[in-house]
Amino acid sequence: MSDVVVVGAGLAGLSAARRLVAAGKSVTVLEARDRVGGRTWTVRMGEGTFDVGGQWIGPGQPRMSALVEEFGLETSPTFSDGRKVLDLRGRLSSYTGLIPRINPWSLIATQIAMWRIDRMCIQVPIEDPWKAKKAREWDSTTVEAFARRSLRNKDAIALVNSAARVIFGSDLGELSLLHFLHYLHSGGGLAKLIDTHGGNQDARIVGGAQQVCEHLAEACGGVTCGAPIRRIEQSEGGVVVHGDEQSWSCKQVVVAVPIGLADRIRYTPPLPTLRDQLTQRVGMGATIKCVALYDRPFWRDAGWSGEGVSTDGTVGVCFDNVSPEGQASLLGFVVGAPGRGWAERPAKERRELVLSTFARWFGDEALSPTDYREADWAAEEFSGGAPIATFPPGSLSVMGPALRAPVGRIFWAGTETARESTGFMEGAVESGERAADEVLEALNRN
Amino acid sequence: MSDVVVVGAGLAGLSAARRLVAAGKSVTVLEARDRVGGRTWTVRMGEGTFDVGGQWIGPGQPRMSALVEEFGLETSPTFSDGRKVLDLRGRLSSYTGLIPRINPWSLIATQIAMWRIDRMCIQVPIEDPWKAKKAREWDSTTVEAFARRSLRNKDAIALVNSAARVIFGSDLGELSLLHFLHYLHSGGGLAKLIDTHGGNQDARIVGGAQQVCEHLAEACGGVTCGAPIRRIEQSEGGVVVHGDEQSWSCKQVVVAVPIGLADRIRYTPPLPTLRDQLTQRVGMGATIKCVALYDRPFWRDAGWSGEGVSTDGTVGVCFDNVSPEGQASLLGFVVGAPGRGWAERPAKERRELVLSTFARWFGDEALSPTDYREADWAAEEFSGGAPIATFPPGSLSVMGPALRAPVGRIFWAGTETARESTGFMEGAVESGERAADEVLEALNRN
Repeated sequence: MSDVVVVGAGLAGLSAARRLVAAGKSVTVLEARDRVGGRTWTVRMGEGTFDVGGQWIGPGQPRMSALVEEFGLETSPTFSDGRKVLDLRGRLSSYTGLIPRINPWSLIATQIAMWRIDRMCIQVPIEDPWKAKKAREWDSTTVEAFARRSLRNKDAIALVNSAARVIFGSDLGELSLLHFLHYLHSGGGLAKLIDTHGGNQDARIVGGAQQVCEHLAEACGGVTCGAPIRRIEQSEGGVVVHGDEQSWSCKQVVVAVPIGLADRIRYTPPLPTLRDQLTQRVGMGATIKCVALYDRPFWRDAGWSGEGVSTDGTVGVCFDNVSPEGQASLLGFVVGAPGRGWAERPAKERRELVLSTFARWFGDEALSPTDYREADWAAEEFSGGAPIATFPPGSLSVMGPALRAPVGRIFWAGTETARESTGFMEGAVESGERAADEVLEALNRN
Repeated sequence: MSDVVVVGAGLAGLSAARRLVAAGKSVTVLEARDRVGGRTWTVRMGEGTFDVGGQWIGPGQPRMSALVEEFGLETSPTFSDGRKVLDLRGRLSSYTGLIPRINPWSLIATQIAMWRIDRMCIQVPIEDPWKAKKAREWDSTTVEAFARRSLRNKDAIALVNSAARVIFGSDLGELSLLHFLHYLHSGGGLAKLIDTHGGNQDARIVGGAQQVCEHLAEACGGVTCGAPIRRIEQSEGGVVVHGDEQSWSCKQVVVAVPIGLADRIRYTPPLPTLRDQLTQRVGMGATIKCVALYDRPFWRDAGWSGEGVSTDGTVGVCFDNVSPEGQASLLGFVVGAPGRGWAERPAKERRELVLSTFARWFGDEALSPTDYREADWAAEEFSGGAPIATFPPGSLSVMGPALRAPVGRIFWAGTETARESTGFMEGAVESGERAADEVLEALNRN
């Protein structure tokens, strides 16, 4: 019998496990997949390594910075020199710097929207968003309904929606305004969330983000992979964690699976109804990362930064994705509504949709990649979607307190439960360390 | 090996099974609970029988009427003679007939709201709501955001919210406007949904609604109870349905569990992502039915009908619940936000909250029931909530097509999948019969 079983070897679970091991506890880490990393996943393509999951880190993420340093990893800044593409409601334009060349009224409206949103979001407590003074009011509307009423300008709404798709994997019409504001506040504001330099897409980890999990796993003394957990059974004496063929006994358990899937584990006795109703409602976003490799970064030669934003197309955002090793690549995100049911469409059609967007923006060379690969996170049985869970209206304000409240011997980790930087790798680490502290307190109590 | 396994012995599953048996197919019906009935559940209390689940039937429900007649059951009209109570934003008033005595402006606003909603809801196709011309627009806002903008009158909004709580087990701020309009259209309009005489609360079945399921189960040749299903495995040759200790093989399977819980079954291979994302998001409503028994229907003597509506209190709606056998009783609904996390509150506090509301409305005799019982549907492991599933904004318009689309050998039943009267017992029967027809077609094809 271990002191603790940790279910899920993503950043959250491994951060919890490492802290527990460091405190001298015996810990068993169980992972459903045959790899560690969860929503971080690094693959080798061509002459480079590419993150088809969580990829970027930025300033103001002390835990990730410390891990990168500790494990002797390097970072590489995101390339963004040159002209950027804006595909705004069907009208193609390009610009350099931060300000897109759009109708000045739309530009002003967008700027006012961003100011207004930033002013509202600081009223939402980062740790306990359900305690915001206007929690109930903001949680009873979608961001889209709010935007239609108070922004009015269609270009501004479309731009905010395309940001939301990338940030949440969901459209404005799915998101509770409270959830949206909370997320923005927790992540440092809208501008920081969508920026590259100095923002949350500032840099990537040379060799890939999954390495952090691999190093953490090593520090924990290893992980049992291929062990999906089906049931967690609590009793007076302890917890039994049941897989398909094996069970593990422990004193306390940390559940570090995405909250949208946490209710696919069976709990005996059943969880409190507030927690149960929350997990019924919370669903993972739709994000497909599409990586195309090329012989050379032809877009750079033509003066393009590789950055593109589309409000209505299949590809919501595109980035220059040349690997630190020098492998030329573009990265397209199919996110939110266009990404729903993506796996059910023919592979050829999907590929053509993505590459034709790249070609429309950066020229016909984009149509002939040397390799092409998608990571459709909704089709990942043990993620159910990405980048994060969406809280529909009426859930966070009412059921939010059940988000990380321990249930007997069960403790909850995962970036959605983070008290800061929720949704980011940084938040995953914070949540794991917080869950570990809760477990240590419980172990010391008994 | 049976031709068909039906998972879930509620009205939907049993209606499917009966039709399949009648067509000469071999059918195994599996039920997780130790009883049939699903969200219908009749209990004996005092000298009467009471439905702590689905209770009422009304005109325009041909399938339920036919079953009642076929099984030789009687119906008993809902009592509603006398004054009714309205507890509107803390102001108590009483009225007779259909029109509450409220501020005339609020009355007009409420009437206009109802007209407007009824005019909108006929634009939503009952069978395929995602095909409504304004599906995306209406699905990107909550009913509350819509109401705040277009009704404005606070009394009217509060009244519509209290109707929504009873109908959906959810508040206006949780409901997609498209879902709300679809449900109303499918159920015959807002007035019919909330009315007793001539409405959907017109009558109850003497001896309880669960009897219909018991008769259906008999007609199917019995049900295997105590058999929760954990996994459904499809292959070229057939389907294997796995319980805790036993597995069942069949050619086709009907899954007739509440859609909010359908994703707690594991599917191999995994379901299409659109279906998976839908079931991640859909959650069951919060409904607690509270039955208090009394020596005599003291409220009737004082001229009260027993009907009460509160917009802000714990009890959303109260009805005279005297059983056809003559056992005096009041029935209170704790629904929507006040019902969240109900099971986590002390039993004594819950009881006092409910009885003190009855007393405030009908007099202190209400404080001394001869028996008191709650059915908290969110605490029911195999329902997860009641009366129905809530579709959050952005789900029905985008993922709705996955609602009843068969997946290989899997067919979906349940009142949420009904093509008419969705949410009602009538809809459950319709959905089961439709699923059976789909299965028969598939069996004949092979």
